[in-house]
Amino acid sequence: MSQKILVIGGVAVGPKSACRAKRLDPDADVIMVDQDNIISYGGCGIPYYVCGDVAEPEGLRQTAFHRVRDASFFAEEKCIKVKTSTRALKIDRRKQEVLVKNLENDQEEILSYDKLVLATGSTPFVPPIPGAEADGVSVVSNMHQAMDIKARLAKGEVGKAVILGAGAIGLEMGEAMADLWGAETTIVEMMDQILPRVVDPNIATMAEHHLEQNNITVYTSERAEEILTDDNGKVTGVKTDKRSIEADIVIMAVGVRPNSQLAAEAGLAIGPFGGIVVNQRMQTSDRNIYAGGDCVEQLCLVSGMSTYAPLGSVANRQGRVIGSNLVGKPETFEGVVGSFIIKLFNNCVAKTGLSLEMATFMGYDAIVAFIAQADKAHFYPDNEMIYMQMVVEKKTKRVLGVQGISSHTRSLLARISAVAAILKYKPTVEDISNMEIPYSPPYASAMDVINTLGNAAQNLLEGRNKPVYMEDFMQLFADRENGKVMFLDVRGELQAEPLVEKYGPHWVNIPNNELGRRIDELPDDKKIILICNAGSRSYDALNILQKSGKDVHNLLGGMNGLLRAGYKF
Amino acid sequence: MSQKILVIGGVAVGPKSACRAKRLDPDADVIMVDQDNIISYGGCGIPYYVCGDVAEPEGLRQTAFHRVRDASFFAEEKCIKVKTSTRALKIDRRKQEVLVKNLENDQEEILSYDKLVLATGSTPFVPPIPGAEADGVSVVSNMHQAMDIKARLAKGEVGKAVILGAGAIGLEMGEAMADLWGAETTIVEMMDQILPRVVDPNIATMAEHHLEQNNITVYTSERAEEILTDDNGKVTGVKTDKRSIEADIVIMAVGVRPNSQLAAEAGLAIGPFGGIVVNQRMQTSDRNIYAGGDCVEQLCLVSGMSTYAPLGSVANRQGRVIGSNLVGKPETFEGVVGSFIIKLFNNCVAKTGLSLEMATFMGYDAIVAFIAQADKAHFYPDNEMIYMQMVVEKKTKRVLGVQGISSHTRSLLARISAVAAILKYKPTVEDISNMEIPYSPPYASAMDVINTLGNAAQNLLEGRNKPVYMEDFMQLFADRENGKVMFLDVRGELQAEPLVEKYGPHWVNIPNNELGRRIDELPDDKKIILICNAGSRSYDALNILQKSGKDVHNLLGGMNGLLRAGYKF
Repeated sequence: MSQKILVIGGVAVGPKSACRAKRLDPDADVIMVDQDNIISYGGCGIPYYVCGDVAEPEGLRQTAFHRVRDASFFAEEKCIKVKTSTRALKIDRRKQEVLVKNLENDQEEILSYDKLVLATGSTPFVPPIPGAEADGVSVVSNMHQAMDIKARLAKGEVGKAVILGAGAIGLEMGEAMADLWGAETTIVEMMDQILPRVVDPNIATMAEHHLEQNNITVYTSERAEEILTDDNGKVTGVKTDKRSIEADIVIMAVGVRPNSQLAAEAGLAIGPFGGIVVNQRMQTSDRNIYAGGDCVEQLCLVSGMSTYAPLGSVANRQGRVIGSNLVGKPETFEGVVGSFIIKLFNNCVAKTGLSLEMATFMGYDAIVAFIAQADKAHFYPDNEMIYMQMVVEKKTKRVLGVQGISSHTRSLLARISAVAAILKYKPTVEDISNMEIPYSPPYASAMDVINTLGNAAQNLLEGRNKPVYMEDFMQLFADRENGKVMFLDVRGELQAEPLVEKYGPHWVNIPNNELGRRIDELPDDKKIILICNAGSRSYDALNILQKSGKDVHNLLGGMNGLLRAGYKF
Repeated sequence: MSQKILVIGGVAVGPKSACRAKRLDPDADVIMVDQDNIISYGGCGIPYYVCGDVAEPEGLRQTAFHRVRDASFFAEEKCIKVKTSTRALKIDRRKQEVLVKNLENDQEEILSYDKLVLATGSTPFVPPIPGAEADGVSVVSNMHQAMDIKARLAKGEVGKAVILGAGAIGLEMGEAMADLWGAETTIVEMMDQILPRVVDPNIATMAEHHLEQNNITVYTSERAEEILTDDNGKVTGVKTDKRSIEADIVIMAVGVRPNSQLAAEAGLAIGPFGGIVVNQRMQTSDRNIYAGGDCVEQLCLVSGMSTYAPLGSVANRQGRVIGSNLVGKPETFEGVVGSFIIKLFNNCVAKTGLSLEMATFMGYDAIVAFIAQADKAHFYPDNEMIYMQMVVEKKTKRVLGVQGISSHTRSLLARISAVAAILKYKPTVEDISNMEIPYSPPYASAMDVINTLGNAAQNLLEGRNKPVYMEDFMQLFADRENGKVMFLDVRGELQAEPLVEKYGPHWVNIPNNELGRRIDELPDDKKIILICNAGSRSYDALNILQKSGKDVHNLLGGMNGLLRAGYKF
């Protein structure tokens, strides 16, 4: 007898598990329901639809061969029955039935199952502030909202936009508003940096500076308190704890919550993040019910703890695993290491594993290596700086995470992908030092930026580098008049001269090649901060001076890093 | 007492080991000798110097901060003594001495050591054919040859160029000649494909087609028999076993041999590839003598066998490990997985691990998965096809290697780097299916191309896909008049029509969405080859038809692959 498979949810994990199961077992009777009338769209593509890179909403719903994935597509090409505008109301686990309701005609129906898949997704969190329901205030979680936002932009109704939340969706929507539509765009973030918990402050500062260079105003450590409206209930602005900002549209992007209520009501286990608990075969606490995507929690393969990673890519891979298990082919999804990437105008920010903040929060005693190096052989044309940092557990030299910022070329993607691939094997810094990125001058350096990052971490762990991080440097620099610090620029005269002129006698220039014979010029009673362009020549200087007994420290990332972060000199 | 470290060889591994040792132990007395008067250059950059991307030879010799790495640089910034134009003649291991000779004044000298580093590099193989020594015939292994070649090009002396050998250097030099200088360029390769032993035929065919599109003539399975010269001994052409080709310059790039003679004469162990044998700490069979770079063999971490991988990147990483060990800090270089990348005009070819040919040669019973998929979300603008194939051991599902071709963007680099990173952990196809490439539409697909490659391999291994590879397809197509095969195009009518018109009744069109209800139209007595654009819709078709009892097979890579390989329809 053919097996009845019922799938609740028609985006990402739902269709993927349904199609996979049907391919493996063509006899299976597969039904998929979704409360929306638009299904199987690329939700992560919404910002690119809003900005115009994807012209029509159908663009996000088509296969690679331009067929819209609607109910008839699934029926004809995949032999899967789809009921749209159909909401699942209740699961009866004993009877193996689900009560559903057609939202167009309010008719209820009972669907029975042998195996059930919960692909119920997530819901954006809406902060409980006055005016949150006003006309022109929107979250971004489905195609209808996306089409509404784009329609307002296209009609010229949006001169000013405010985004609440500087996570991925907030930043992507900010770029969409500002870039193509030229809206005066402001992003308000409650935490003290953009991309909080994703990357650490130095990378975030660089990214924030790039947003500002592209005419986006960013306010961090600022909390929205009220949505302002006119007499018609239309949004006019946002009142924060620091100011009022005019707005014709407000996008709320402060995070999402797993849709696990249906599962919870059916008595399935729910985890600390509110997501459905699943095992490696994506089974819930009921062996006949599987779940995946934004509604579940998963294992973090770095920390070994539960985590919440609502991502289309994770959902798709989980969907395939579910599809196999549905028809008795055992497959597992081990968990996630936590990879992330975002395009911000001409820049790319990416990470995998834990940030220092997250690692510290989880109890690791970790250090951070931070470097700047060209993405390809430095003699090859158009090479570009990649800024990367690595979080390493002190005791074990274990790599916990890597993050970086670079231009939009896929150079950073390559390095982050390589580290992402090995994180589950618990690599140490030596594995990064000897990582075998394919080498040829147009693509990599002979000692690739990722190898250098490993080497830099080793030097730090073994006490051979005495690091000064950018933020600390800027504090020391701000306090320079106290005379306790000498800023020793070891670059050539031409590069150092403007700073020596402006900040002398605090800022002193001795090029590296003269340092050995000019040690006596250096004070014994001051902290000496060594500075070059990227932090490698100053590391050489540190080695030259190490034996001298002087109190020498090395600015990681060099002047390039400081300027990239928007610090002014 | 300070330790005496002597380094023989001043490129890549030599300087790197010397500098690392000196940084770790500033008291060490470090001397580096090289028979050339130009040292520490980026040899892999030579084609980019010849083509003009790097304007001056100094470009390949400078640090990132534009200081030329000559003897005075090493003396001033690294505290390392360098003797150029100084050849090492003989090692006396008992006395720990090396006899060297200054090639400018013929004076000999004995240098003693506590620790010795052999960084003697490799020498290009020159085929023993008449005329190999003629004026205008050159190998590419040092800056002097590079400058001579570029001078000839710049003077307009090179209208026609012939390259012998279609390995990395041959192809890069071919591009250099043809691209900037507009020379009529021919590449002659003895083996039956370009990049032999690096990638397998289908990827090689695509790459070869791209070279031809860029006006390079490629002759494979062809052997140079004589270099033709005029009365002055200047090259005029190359005679092969099939034709004569005019040439103003001939570049020999048929491979390199390790320079291990000095080591062999000193009684050090030499391996099957003629390279010096070293352990994981890069020690030779004499514990006081280290060796690295092009003169050594290394462990292949995929096969567990010895291999020869003369690459600047490997040399640099080995150099650092040697430097640490020289001063008593134990570090290891585990071996290589065999990563490779090359830019060919607007294309990129890359691989890691073993090709099918190499895997088969080593005794693995392996299969190949081959796919075509966009590098990013297919709805995102400017997405480009990546063609990838994976070699998998049948019995264990272990991934032995991955290779691919794409545009020059770094999309392929990212996927190959990720696989390169995990190969030493002996991953299976499941590890590839669930590989966590950071996802966002501008950078990856929700089900990324590398995941799809893993999935495709699984389907093959489990017998769910019945593959037809490109070459076999073309053979079947050529024999179509025998009536034994039906070519079933499952794309939309618009795409299939021209081929149906031209090749009907052999070429038949039934779009995927009609296939289920039109099964009866298909013959029972013919092999049916399913065809779509990229091989995924035809895989769906295979699933639809699987139960029907028809003899169905799926063209991997689809029409896109065939056209990319230059096959005409």
